[in-house]
Amino acid sequence: MVKAAAVQMDVVLARPEENKDRILKLARETEADLVVFPECANSGYVFTSAQEALPYADSVPGPFVEQLAAVAKECNRCLAVGLLEKDGDTLYNSAALITSQGQLHLYRKTHMPYIGLDRFLSPGDRLDLFDSPLGKVGLAICYDWRFPELARSLALQGADLLIGLSNWPDGAQVIPSVLLPARAAENRVWIVSSNRVGTERGVEFIGRSAIISPDGETLCALDGREEGVALGEIDLTLARNKRLVKKPGEYEVDLWRDRRPSLYRAVTRGEENA
Amino acid sequence: MVKAAAVQMDVVLARPEENKDRILKLARETEADLVVFPECANSGYVFTSAQEALPYADSVPGPFVEQLAAVAKECNRCLAVGLLEKDGDTLYNSAALITSQGQLHLYRKTHMPYIGLDRFLSPGDRLDLFDSPLGKVGLAICYDWRFPELARSLALQGADLLIGLSNWPDGAQVIPSVLLPARAAENRVWIVSSNRVGTERGVEFIGRSAIISPDGETLCALDGREEGVALGEIDLTLARNKRLVKKPGEYEVDLWRDRRPSLYRAVTRGEENA
Repeated sequence: MVKAAAVQMDVVLARPEENKDRILKLARETEADLVVFPECANSGYVFTSAQEALPYADSVPGPFVEQLAAVAKECNRCLAVGLLEKDGDTLYNSAALITSQGQLHLYRKTHMPYIGLDRFLSPGDRLDLFDSPLGKVGLAICYDWRFPELARSLALQGADLLIGLSNWPDGAQVIPSVLLPARAAENRVWIVSSNRVGTERGVEFIGRSAIISPDGETLCALDGREEGVALGEIDLTLARNKRLVKKPGEYEVDLWRDRRPSLYRAVTRGEENA
Repeated sequence: MVKAAAVQMDVVLARPEENKDRILKLARETEADLVVFPECANSGYVFTSAQEALPYADSVPGPFVEQLAAVAKECNRCLAVGLLEKDGDTLYNSAALITSQGQLHLYRKTHMPYIGLDRFLSPGDRLDLFDSPLGKVGLAICYDWRFPELARSLALQGADLLIGLSNWPDGAQVIPSVLLPARAAENRVWIVSSNRVGTERGVEFIGRSAIISPDGETLCALDGREEGVALGEIDLTLARNKRLVKKPGEYEVDLWRDRRPSLYRAVTRGEENA
């Protein structure tokens, strides 16, 4: 069993030292095998230009990720942290997953909304699975969850667990309330989802961090707009069974075997308009 | 505006005349532009062999569809009816959509669970959109809804409305409660979904017929296990807008433009194991 924690925290715009100190403190204090933080937890989100945001971005690898790795090692836990990442002058909305052995898996957000910081960032180009000591893990950031293909692609590659790091604003309630339980149930994977709270320049973030089972059932959810931690003991082996057997020989389905990939060509057809 | 009705009815196993008389009566009496009936509404579902079911199957075209077309014309409405279909000795779990002008669109269920009648049927091989006088319509039958690719493929082809015809048994609650609202919201399409009630050979069907908006909101849902009609006035043009604009220039997303088809290859990869 894996003890998973989704930290629902406020983040202060353009105050990276303050944000990172809190992340490191919470990473140390939250007793769990996996601790997940929100999107852009180093920088905040409602910037008005790339120039304004650039000073608050972290390199990966870099000092902040090294500090996180030291805590991960010291506390024997995995950490997933959303961060504004810079690679030269290019900015990404990234998630770093750091294991207790110091392995690093980096995901760069692939679906870019024209909102806040994302308006000025470069999209990632990979949906890679990470074979962590906990199990096979995929990452998704905020708007990514709107697209069923992302969770599906990671699950088909073998994900046991999808980690979500979000800055869902007011108006995006359908994502935590409707889409996340569906992503878990349709793929029979675990979801550990952290969304931030607080307000930046009039934009309010809606919390609702949660742990969701492969049945689509919410084990733990924070429903308010306050800080807190969603906690759950999760058995990742449940995600490896895509069969639902109610009565052998009479009621057996297999959500992987019963797919019809040759009928799904519309899903991959067409050019990207990004 | 289209007035849509999902008829939640019981169906009697192996009593096709009784079932068809009720369908024709309800098709006539239900005041709506579109009236949807459940899966296998002619035959019932919990058969133990193809041989047992064969006598209760209808040919398409054939006498039953002609009777439906007469009612559709007479009442100036579209009808969608789930039926056990025979084509020679081959049996399909089909849905016939019949317009008030007498056009016929036939969909054969593509995702086959090893449950009830479906154990013995042939799968369909097409996910076609139907350009009806009401709007562009796609069809989905019962277990089909488990697979996000089906609704997605129809929506990407231009569906305004997905019509669902189901025999969800006890245990499949996650489909109406979690998956259908997600299918509507992720694709921004309307859903009109009919599921039957009643019991056959110990299998209980769970109702929950509903009308769901492109925002994923349920306009009308029957939650009990009783017969009834879910009714809703639906504006199909809403489904043609995939953009969500909260604040122009600051908060604009487009669920179609922002897709990344080149990253979704896992979805169509691999052979079918059916």
